[in-house]
Amino acid sequence: MTSRNASIIVIGDEILSGKTQDSNIKFIADELSAMGILLAEARIIPDSKSKIIQTVNELRNICDFVFTTGGIGPTHDDITSSAIAQAFGLELEINQEALKIMTEKYEKRGATLNEGSKKMAIMPQGVKIIKNSATSAPGFKIENVFVMAGIPWVMQAMFQEIKIHLLASFSDLGSSPFYTQSIEIFIGESIIAKQLEELQAKFPEVAIGSYPFKANEIWGTNINFRSKHKDLIEQAKIEFKLILEDLNK
Amino acid sequence: MTSRNASIIVIGDEILSGKTQDSNIKFIADELSAMGILLAEARIIPDSKSKIIQTVNELRNICDFVFTTGGIGPTHDDITSSAIAQAFGLELEINQEALKIMTEKYEKRGATLNEGSKKMAIMPQGVKIIKNSATSAPGFKIENVFVMAGIPWVMQAMFQEIKIHLLASFSDLGSSPFYTQSIEIFIGESIIAKQLEELQAKFPEVAIGSYPFKANEIWGTNINFRSKHKDLIEQAKIEFKLILEDLNK
Repeated sequence: MTSRNASIIVIGDEILSGKTQDSNIKFIADELSAMGILLAEARIIPDSKSKIIQTVNELRNICDFVFTTGGIGPTHDDITSSAIAQAFGLELEINQEALKIMTEKYEKRGATLNEGSKKMAIMPQGVKIIKNSATSAPGFKIENVFVMAGIPWVMQAMFQEIKIHLLASFSDLGSSPFYTQSIEIFIGESIIAKQLEELQAKFPEVAIGSYPFKANEIWGTNINFRSKHKDLIEQAKIEFKLILEDLNK
Repeated sequence: MTSRNASIIVIGDEILSGKTQDSNIKFIADELSAMGILLAEARIIPDSKSKIIQTVNELRNICDFVFTTGGIGPTHDDITSSAIAQAFGLELEINQEALKIMTEKYEKRGATLNEGSKKMAIMPQGVKIIKNSATSAPGFKIENVFVMAGIPWVMQAMFQEIKIHLLASFSDLGSSPFYTQSIEIFIGESIIAKQLEELQAKFPEVAIGSYPFKANEIWGTNINFRSKHKDLIEQAKIEFKLILEDLNK
């Protein structure tokens, strides 16, 4: 069974400089997994217009969905909207729906939208707004590209809106999530490498991953089973347990 | 002043599935920054041979250095060495130096190298070994590509060896690191967006980043100054403080 696939583009000098630990990729990866969308790739790129254009245009042509985070704020280093417009060959405009949402939210807290904040309503022509329950400025969607904020809690609020949209738009999403199960063993992975390879060959629809760890000076292995088919995971686990019993004989 | 640049390729289904939070990118980013190497891009890709080949070949041609993490263990999902060989059009061989190191380390702890572990000595022809003080199996270097383990503490041990090699091989590295300074203000970034843009234009050699945060329901901004020139950072900070004083008038 083929899955829809997606990619993430994290736009942020602060990640590449080592200043900040990214956490957006893991959050989105978890959400995609639960919807049954395969995350094909994630890229962290700098606040560079040409790089954003090139990366967005490359990935939107090979992935069903592209999610970007970062660079939609009001300052000089926020160039994502302008880069996305250029990637799609569109002009920028003040998005009236975004401006209305922002104006209302500002008024509600007794503030007025200043010129800096207004920049956040400037978007490529004809985009669809991604609502944002966390702060005032929305994200936007154009074709298969979803443009979100970089601040994790703001991005997460936007992603909830995207999720509702995706589940409503694509009937195959959500109904067949990826399931994951792990077995932790205190055996080094080299000892079971051959058997695991055979097990993987026998269960092509279960991705079997082997992850070594060391605890109290002893090597162990985390065997991970991932599939859209719960029953196949269970079968693979049973066979794996038989392998372990054989080893202990 | 131009810097040498680098890219990171994290090879790991476990990151893309959401199972594991990557921490290798931040570690390497910090180390590169201290050496004065610009991290141009980081990509997280699956355990897919064709994807590894394509990504390595793309990035090694546009970056001075490429660092890969993951996929050099003994199990079926460890395909990095084989993919790198193919990317460079080389055959795989048992690397005698790696085999010797591993055999000695195993003997030292009273163990014998099993067939599974021996797989970790299979590398592309003619590579240079990257020593590993943490565990037995080394990484390797081929041209400008450095191939490391995925387990963070093992990767970090390998990176220390790479650092020594890089600093010894390139006299321009290490002597001009990137410096970073931050100023935290309790002013929303939209209020100072215009002034920051002017400040950035005045100091093209200082990357000025603006990162909003919210603490106790109040919006603040983290202004980040990054440059190889400490003095320019200081000058930019002085001018920024004048901007703040003007705002408070």
